[in-house]
Amino acid sequence: MATIQDVAKRAGVGAATVSRVLSGNGYVKQETRERVQQAIDELHYTPNEMARNLFFRKSSIVAVIVPELAHPFFTEIVNAVEVALSAAGYQAMVCNTFYEQSYELRYIDMLKRQIVDGIIFAAHTSQGLDQYQNLHRPIVGIDRNLGKDIPCVAADHETGGRLAAEELLSCGCKNVVQFVGRKERVVSSYDRRHVVFEKVMKQHGVSCHSVDIYWRSFASDSFQKSAAEAFTKYPETDGVFGADLYAMAAMQYALQIGRRIPEDVRIVAYDGTNATRFMTPGMTAVCQPIEEIARESVRMITDLIQGKELQQNNITLPVTLRRRDSTGAGG
Amino acid sequence: MATIQDVAKRAGVGAATVSRVLSGNGYVKQETRERVQQAIDELHYTPNEMARNLFFRKSSIVAVIVPELAHPFFTEIVNAVEVALSAAGYQAMVCNTFYEQSYELRYIDMLKRQIVDGIIFAAHTSQGLDQYQNLHRPIVGIDRNLGKDIPCVAADHETGGRLAAEELLSCGCKNVVQFVGRKERVVSSYDRRHVVFEKVMKQHGVSCHSVDIYWRSFASDSFQKSAAEAFTKYPETDGVFGADLYAMAAMQYALQIGRRIPEDVRIVAYDGTNATRFMTPGMTAVCQPIEEIARESVRMITDLIQGKELQQNNITLPVTLRRRDSTGAGG
Repeated sequence: MATIQDVAKRAGVGAATVSRVLSGNGYVKQETRERVQQAIDELHYTPNEMARNLFFRKSSIVAVIVPELAHPFFTEIVNAVEVALSAAGYQAMVCNTFYEQSYELRYIDMLKRQIVDGIIFAAHTSQGLDQYQNLHRPIVGIDRNLGKDIPCVAADHETGGRLAAEELLSCGCKNVVQFVGRKERVVSSYDRRHVVFEKVMKQHGVSCHSVDIYWRSFASDSFQKSAAEAFTKYPETDGVFGADLYAMAAMQYALQIGRRIPEDVRIVAYDGTNATRFMTPGMTAVCQPIEEIARESVRMITDLIQGKELQQNNITLPVTLRRRDSTGAGG
Repeated sequence: MATIQDVAKRAGVGAATVSRVLSGNGYVKQETRERVQQAIDELHYTPNEMARNLFFRKSSIVAVIVPELAHPFFTEIVNAVEVALSAAGYQAMVCNTFYEQSYELRYIDMLKRQIVDGIIFAAHTSQGLDQYQNLHRPIVGIDRNLGKDIPCVAADHETGGRLAAEELLSCGCKNVVQFVGRKERVVSSYDRRHVVFEKVMKQHGVSCHSVDIYWRSFASDSFQKSAAEAFTKYPETDGVFGADLYAMAAMQYALQIGRRIPEDVRIVAYDGTNATRFMTPGMTAVCQPIEEIARESVRMITDLIQGKELQQNNITLPVTLRRRDSTGAGG
């Protein structure tokens, strides 16, 4: 492989001159410029990108940190973020934490070492806010508050919880169950949907049980187990609210034990990822604006990388209710 | 941020000495070593990873090229590859081609420019085999034959097609439909499952229609449309074989038009990703050994990056049949 020295030698100039031609910075005589270009062409020289990155202290890579890629919400977030980063001239580096804080440290280290220009953070774990605040490097949280100076993009989870509650109330539910993620160390508005859901239910005199769940691998059958446990513990359940995979597992289990949907049990999923769209009966869902979340987080991270001032540090995006058969909406 | 020069100055040595201490290569007096270490600690110096990569001509990043991350098979492949790469000390960089060949060129360019140490290739498009063969850099295909010198890991698709056919035959199917991906420019053993499926069906006097489908975005409703078209064109269909999302859409559509599963229509999915596990009735599937495929491809790419000779250039891994309700197996 030809080096910059090979090009310089063939063109009869110094390596610094070749570098000036490549970068377009600094004066080079037209005739010299042409001679260098000819040498580049003849030697099929490709500039070493890492050398260039080193010079500009930029890698054009953004780390996208998620707990596990196989969860539908994170799959779709990463996919959408990659589309948006790609359009902005950046490359996504996917980083799974696998729910381990030790992995997270490694990615923070990559940012320190300038392997990546920035981090979009959507994992559950957290090494504590100080870790992020003291970095003074480009970081954007998706649904995670990493400290007062670190921007965050999130869906309007309060409205999400309220929409789900109102949908189940309008179906006449009297005994509802919601699957609630265990309190993680990370600060997020995410939990608000459950708080609001329960509040609305209680205001209307409806019994509301919260079933604690843990974030687990998509590959396990923990979703099915949680669904079975909930219906065993609360057999009178006539309404269910939970993240997509829990809602899907609840539908599967309810049908399996002979409950009719929506006559006996109504279900509202949260996130509304594509996985829910293949269910029979059709799955009602509160849909997060995944593409908008991705676009906004990418706009923010690229602005930060390019040293621009952000207009707004916290962005909250609206959710929508998609009504289907599981709450009697038809379709 | 402290530089290597800052460390050298504080320790009263040259930058080359600091570099020797950091790399562990070359002799440095114990006393000098300690002085350098003290300066590193006092200045909170972090070596610039890109500078080190440049020196060693290694980035420890492997590009994983897929058509679209949101397809369940590729989601699970990328997730499993990332787990295996991570365990081997490498970082995955996810590269979607979005079915565009122009994107592919960009990733090949990243390999040329040494941004990545290697490529694991699982996309549909292909710039032609010459592109890859002439690179002489670490590349491994997953289910893609990129040229005679480029290793490939694939599932045993011939057996996969035969298992699906035999399962539907054992249910007494007489009129089957299979969803067949359009012929892509890439060379793959992938299509063999359809050839074998049709052959076995015809050997047993069973009518077998192949419905052409195109790889499309998971986000679209093309799966549902294809399913509706197939049942409209071939209303006598009593058996369906297709990739997970097509099988799932076929189940959804059949139930919607009042067909009973498995009494009227039996379905076998191909890939067996986790998405199929939430269906009611339970979905029978030919399962690809996704984790093994990922492990083997990572073993091969890291061997190639480290300059080791591969024992074997082509690896074929066994598939398994997971029997569920959709072919009357219960569960």
